[in-house]
Amino acid sequence: MSFSLLRLDEENADFPMLRLFRLVEHPSVDSVRYSVPTVGKAMQGVYRSVLEELISVNEVTAMPEGDRNAVKAFRAGILTVSDSGSKGGRPQDISGDTISELVTSSGLVEVAREMVPDELDAISNLLRRWSDEGEMDVILTTGGTGLGPRDVTPEATRSVIDIEVPGIAEAMRMETLKMTPFAMLSRATAGVRSGCLIINLPGSPKGVRECLEIAMPALPHGLEMIRGWRTHEIL
Amino acid sequence: MSFSLLRLDEENADFPMLRLFRLVEHPSVDSVRYSVPTVGKAMQGVYRSVLEELISVNEVTAMPEGDRNAVKAFRAGILTVSDSGSKGGRPQDISGDTISELVTSSGLVEVAREMVPDELDAISNLLRRWSDEGEMDVILTTGGTGLGPRDVTPEATRSVIDIEVPGIAEAMRMETLKMTPFAMLSRATAGVRSGCLIINLPGSPKGVRECLEIAMPALPHGLEMIRGWRTHEIL
Amino acid sequence: MSFSLLRLDEENADFPMLRLFRLVEHPSVDSVRYSVPTVGKAMQGVYRSVLEELISVNEVTAMPEGDRNAVKAFRAGILTVSDSGSKGGRPQDISGDTISELVTSSGLVEVAREMVPDELDAISNLLRRWSDEGEMDVILTTGGTGLGPRDVTPEATRSVIDIEVPGIAEAMRMETLKMTPFAMLSRATAGVRSGCLIINLPGSPKGVRECLEIAMPALPHGLEMIRGWRTHEIL
Repeated sequence: MSFSLLRLDEENADFPMLRLFRLVEHPSVDSVRYSVPTVGKAMQGVYRSVLEELISVNEVTAMPEGDRNAVKAFRAGILTVSDSGSKGGRPQDISGDTISELVTSSGLVEVAREMVPDELDAISNLLRRWSDEGEMDVILTTGGTGLGPRDVTPEATRSVIDIEVPGIAEAMRMETLKMTPFAMLSRATAGVRSGCLIINLPGSPKGVRECLEIAMPALPHGLEMIRGWRTHEIL
Repeated sequence: MSFSLLRLDEENADFPMLRLFRLVEHPSVDSVRYSVPTVGKAMQGVYRSVLEELISVNEVTAMPEGDRNAVKAFRAGILTVSDSGSKGGRPQDISGDTISELVTSSGLVEVAREMVPDELDAISNLLRRWSDEGEMDVILTTGGTGLGPRDVTPEATRSVIDIEVPGIAEAMRMETLKMTPFAMLSRATAGVRSGCLIINLPGSPKGVRECLEIAMPALPHGLEMIRGWRTHEIL
Repeated sequence: MSFSLLRLDEENADFPMLRLFRLVEHPSVDSVRYSVPTVGKAMQGVYRSVLEELISVNEVTAMPEGDRNAVKAFRAGILTVSDSGSKGGRPQDISGDTISELVTSSGLVEVAREMVPDELDAISNLLRRWSDEGEMDVILTTGGTGLGPRDVTPEATRSVIDIEVPGIAEAMRMETLKMTPFAMLSRATAGVRSGCLIINLPGSPKGVRECLEIAMPALPHGLEMIRGWRTHEIL
């Protein structure tokens, strides 16, 4: 079962969640296919039922081995910024675990995970390396976005990005502001380097979950724009 | 029929839409007059009826020729940024048309309209020229605000403005975020150069309409502040 | 009567207003005490009754002279930026008065108040001096945040801060946007210099009151983070 990119867009204009799937060229058919590694919790109710009607969810694994590689989900790197966490034996990293869980349940593939101390060079070097290697589409950081003397994640991020995407951090702040006035103290930023979208998330597991659920629905469309796969007329 | 500026402000503090009219000195009366070239669609219901009661809508055209020139609406330039649109024969420019329609229906006067490709220099040169010539009060751009490799309108804008006005783009993003999560991906900015307000709008006709309707109510007051016509105590 | 910092946090996690009090080491007890110089209007209903049950409001003044000095509320400086206000004999400064009243009623202590003209150097020099002297925790400015040719408070602020805290100004704009479209025209910013938080407020008494009431609930936690007193996990 396959749909062309155009048919998908035209017929399902009212279902933006369909964009959650990365669309790829499939060599064995004359149209564009898509894959749904996991149907995430974001797709519920009407979206879910529409999707299940349209899509054979396990289509990818049912494809021959060679074809399967042609269908790739967006790849995510997870960076935990924490002084305490990065010292000594492998520490607990609940915020990193939370990102990992949300990334996977949204159909993205986690391809790297690391932890660095709250130091500008350590953070910016890793962001630079991960972006420039071209092995990931998005980097999600957690920690170091507050007002403390050691909070430098926004500065490290701003020092490496080619362009800033202010609306992602604004949306995370304004939506979580409905839950706590402390949301306005987050200095998180987001931007693009070498075709890789970098997003700062807060340090707490609760903050990570809330903010990532706000940003996630816009992520696939954003990543497709970065790759130049689509015109960006809607923006 | 004329009202002094003070009376207008004092008596109609609850009707901010009244500020949609540019107030000018009128040589033939000892008070400040205003003109209403067109009553736009933004003024409906209570505003409209209040206005019609207060104002002789066609007052301007009823004035002698010489006086009519003394009553000028704010002047707008429209810049469409589009690679495809700017090539070859005169292309369709629905987003530019949409701005044109909204500008006119809001009582502004369109004094220039152009189309340039998604290139930083082409955009910034035109913005610089239009601002510095002093022939317009506001420039509205459409297109090039996304995350694609060719989207450089925000960078071009930022490279020419004297001061940034972050709240205009924030308001457009946060209000349209209620309609689509993709709103957070707009990198639109706004600012002032040489007394001319420059505002980036999205590339799609729908986005242009939604965003301009959000910014329009603040526009006349903003333009009056830029000219130093009013104290800006309310800010 | 005293509570340890930990007990306060654990038991009252649902009452963020408790964070409105600066917590200090008290030499005569083996735990952290707090003081409540004034119970502000922000603490009402359930917060107020919980507080009154937990705290002896006048505890500080009942303490011996030496101990009293150990218990300090956050210290605020108030800077009115106004051309007209700063000329000639001591002018009325209703916006400065409004900040003064809100600062005191929120349990902060006003330690300095000045008025300067709308000039970049005058503003930035004072912000620099006040921040670097270490005698205050927060500086609240009023005026000069609009689009007028003399509005330079945001530029002066940005020229002295070490880090920007964009969410404070965003929150003030987005919340007051519910009341007036002109809110999007405020160019106010906020940031930290030498461990002192600087926040721009609008020029009008009404704007000052609305914006400060939006920022105030986040202020004590922000100031504690700046001092490194707390981990900033919640961000």
